[in-house]
Amino acid sequence: MNMRIADRMSKLGTETAFSVSLEARELACKGKKIYPFHLGDMNIKTPQSIIDAAKKAMDEGRTGYCPSAGIVELREALAEEIGKSRGLKLTAKNISIQTGGKPVIMKFILAFMNPGDEVLYPNPGYPIYESQIRFHDGVAKSYGFKMGVKGFSLDMEHIERLVTPKTKIFIFNNYHNPMGAESDPNEMKKIADFCVKHDMLVLSDEAYFDITYNGKPRSIVSYPGMAERTLILYTFSKKFAMTGWRLGAAIGPEWMIEQINRLNVNDESCSNHFIQWAALEALKNTKEETKQIIDTLRERRDLVCEMLNHIKGIKVFKPNSTFYIFPEVTEAMRNLGFSDVEQFRKFVLETTGVSFCTRKHFGTPLDDEKHEFIRLAYSGIDLKDIKEGLTKLKEAIENPVTAGEWMRNKF
Amino acid sequence: MNMRIADRMSKLGTETAFSVSLEARELACKGKKIYPFHLGDMNIKTPQSIIDAAKKAMDEGRTGYCPSAGIVELREALAEEIGKSRGLKLTAKNISIQTGGKPVIMKFILAFMNPGDEVLYPNPGYPIYESQIRFHDGVAKSYGFKMGVKGFSLDMEHIERLVTPKTKIFIFNNYHNPMGAESDPNEMKKIADFCVKHDMLVLSDEAYFDITYNGKPRSIVSYPGMAERTLILYTFSKKFAMTGWRLGAAIGPEWMIEQINRLNVNDESCSNHFIQWAALEALKNTKEETKQIIDTLRERRDLVCEMLNHIKGIKVFKPNSTFYIFPEVTEAMRNLGFSDVEQFRKFVLETTGVSFCTRKHFGTPLDDEKHEFIRLAYSGIDLKDIKEGLTKLKEAIENPVTAGEWMRNKF
Repeated sequence: MNMRIADRMSKLGTETAFSVSLEARELACKGKKIYPFHLGDMNIKTPQSIIDAAKKAMDEGRTGYCPSAGIVELREALAEEIGKSRGLKLTAKNISIQTGGKPVIMKFILAFMNPGDEVLYPNPGYPIYESQIRFHDGVAKSYGFKMGVKGFSLDMEHIERLVTPKTKIFIFNNYHNPMGAESDPNEMKKIADFCVKHDMLVLSDEAYFDITYNGKPRSIVSYPGMAERTLILYTFSKKFAMTGWRLGAAIGPEWMIEQINRLNVNDESCSNHFIQWAALEALKNTKEETKQIIDTLRERRDLVCEMLNHIKGIKVFKPNSTFYIFPEVTEAMRNLGFSDVEQFRKFVLETTGVSFCTRKHFGTPLDDEKHEFIRLAYSGIDLKDIKEGLTKLKEAIENPVTAGEWMRNKF
Repeated sequence: MNMRIADRMSKLGTETAFSVSLEARELACKGKKIYPFHLGDMNIKTPQSIIDAAKKAMDEGRTGYCPSAGIVELREALAEEIGKSRGLKLTAKNISIQTGGKPVIMKFILAFMNPGDEVLYPNPGYPIYESQIRFHDGVAKSYGFKMGVKGFSLDMEHIERLVTPKTKIFIFNNYHNPMGAESDPNEMKKIADFCVKHDMLVLSDEAYFDITYNGKPRSIVSYPGMAERTLILYTFSKKFAMTGWRLGAAIGPEWMIEQINRLNVNDESCSNHFIQWAALEALKNTKEETKQIIDTLRERRDLVCEMLNHIKGIKVFKPNSTFYIFPEVTEAMRNLGFSDVEQFRKFVLETTGVSFCTRKHFGTPLDDEKHEFIRLAYSGIDLKDIKEGLTKLKEAIENPVTAGEWMRNKF
């Protein structure tokens, strides 16, 4: 029998960060205490009122199919909320409920990218962008970031240089995973002008829009010419600590949402019915609880940054958004004799139990990258373990003897 | 601005049955009582123990991500249950949890069909097969059924004639929507031999496997040479009255499941976490409740068939599975002066409120079809309304005057 796998499957990528989870789990099984900075899951409980609303919806028999686009009550509530926070006028027709934020990436690519179209996407960035572009025969062209004194910023010159007549789509992830980078109004304006000038369609991944610690977040759709060409990826996962509930939305102009809804009919039919009623409660009545989630994350962020900045050879910006820290470890690696960041990661994991991802889990490094980075997520680890883990990290990194021994045993 | 929709979207189909829902809803809004025989949703409540298990899982904090393939406990339970009912030896590695049964169709096509591959699929049949084949650049070749004295059977000669060197995939839907058709062991064996002989990969849509009223259901995978080439579409929707929960599974050989899991990582990440614990309860402890669901459906089936068979010009087989009836209405239409089954449907809907689909909602009729059919679903309507609705149907169909008036007013 011929095990025929379709050719396109050879172009499909993955989240290589999952392999870090696997390594960590294996060590944990052997009895090693793990400090889980590697994955963006949350160890914060979903607010009780949301859980109660899901229970009530089940009791009321909301267990049958609902419209493919989602229940109108939730779509209207999202239209109001997203309209207000992004400065738009939206209706239920601008909203298509999804089984998480991630499916929006695939559906956007399927609906709006032709084979051969060039798509600009961030690198480092969420690896599924590149995977979906390539899977559906697009040309994936990655753009990078510059490290300044205050944080990361987009390399606009690099972005402009990438454009050809075939460049049709721009993927933007403000409040950026893995870097925590955030565009200021000036940079936002430049990006918006760039997209309008080149008549790009835009996917704005706003998964972390609501995980911001100071000031009011801003969306690219609020700039002139953007609302009519941009699909927003929205998720309930982060703000409401609902990662495992799998609920999100595609939000955009009606002409885009109509196409996304056609894909819903062909794929999942509809998202879970009673969970949508819980999400409605989340949008309407959880101000206090979501503030608490942000406060918890802020405390963790401050501790992680403070402790990392006191480790020799590690440099870190304190991001105003996301629950990721993207420290530069070039000097720490050099001090210990590492030239490969993956080897550095394994050394830390095996000797201290501190588990994190590296820059390489978020795309192939660009040609001109001279610095080494790792990514720590603090959404799934509490203050006590942050303190304990990063104390061990400091000891390991500031003591070249341990690293030397580890390498001798390894090779 | 250029509203660029990808070319492939012009090849995407839909479930045209949804438009019947829309018509029915509009009439209902105008105050007309509707008898909903058109859609396969269920008006039977999910068993309480399943709802309780979902609540318990939420309370226990099963609200974070889970593995892409699904929680191992549910996969092991499904491996046992499906192994037993299909005569296979399965493990958790043969199971990939999905957000419903329908996503298995898209993922199967993406993972195993190359552009240009010819795919055989049933017509009449679930319209998403053809849609997904064409959407991903396959060649959709439909095969038909023959009407015998005891029911519908596959037209094996027609199927054999369709095969060319490019024919790579066979889609099989035993316990068939919309016809309720069921292959006997002899026909099953022929299909299995056919698939092995031509080295086909097979999608076995077993959404209605557990909705059978007499005898033990049978799967094509239990025939020699089939298990290693067949992906089963499984759903929790029907047997457990969980349509709106959106949970299903792809079940097959490891080499297939590995590819499906890669698509999970790229699409929904994972299915809802706490619902999987509820599904585990469904598999383990709902024998009594699922028997009751079947008994309820059986009573409805018997009444629908009995009443339809007493309407002049309607011929119906009593299917042993699914919750669909596929009556032949050629004579009834002729008696009333209708030549178009869609017009006949609208006449019945508008004059009686009885809402059903027609053969045309399940694919383009084949060249040699001489008879007209409609489809009635009895999953979403109780005995009282079945009786009331079909009494009205009888009156309308046996009284040519009404039809004549309706047509005069219409045209």
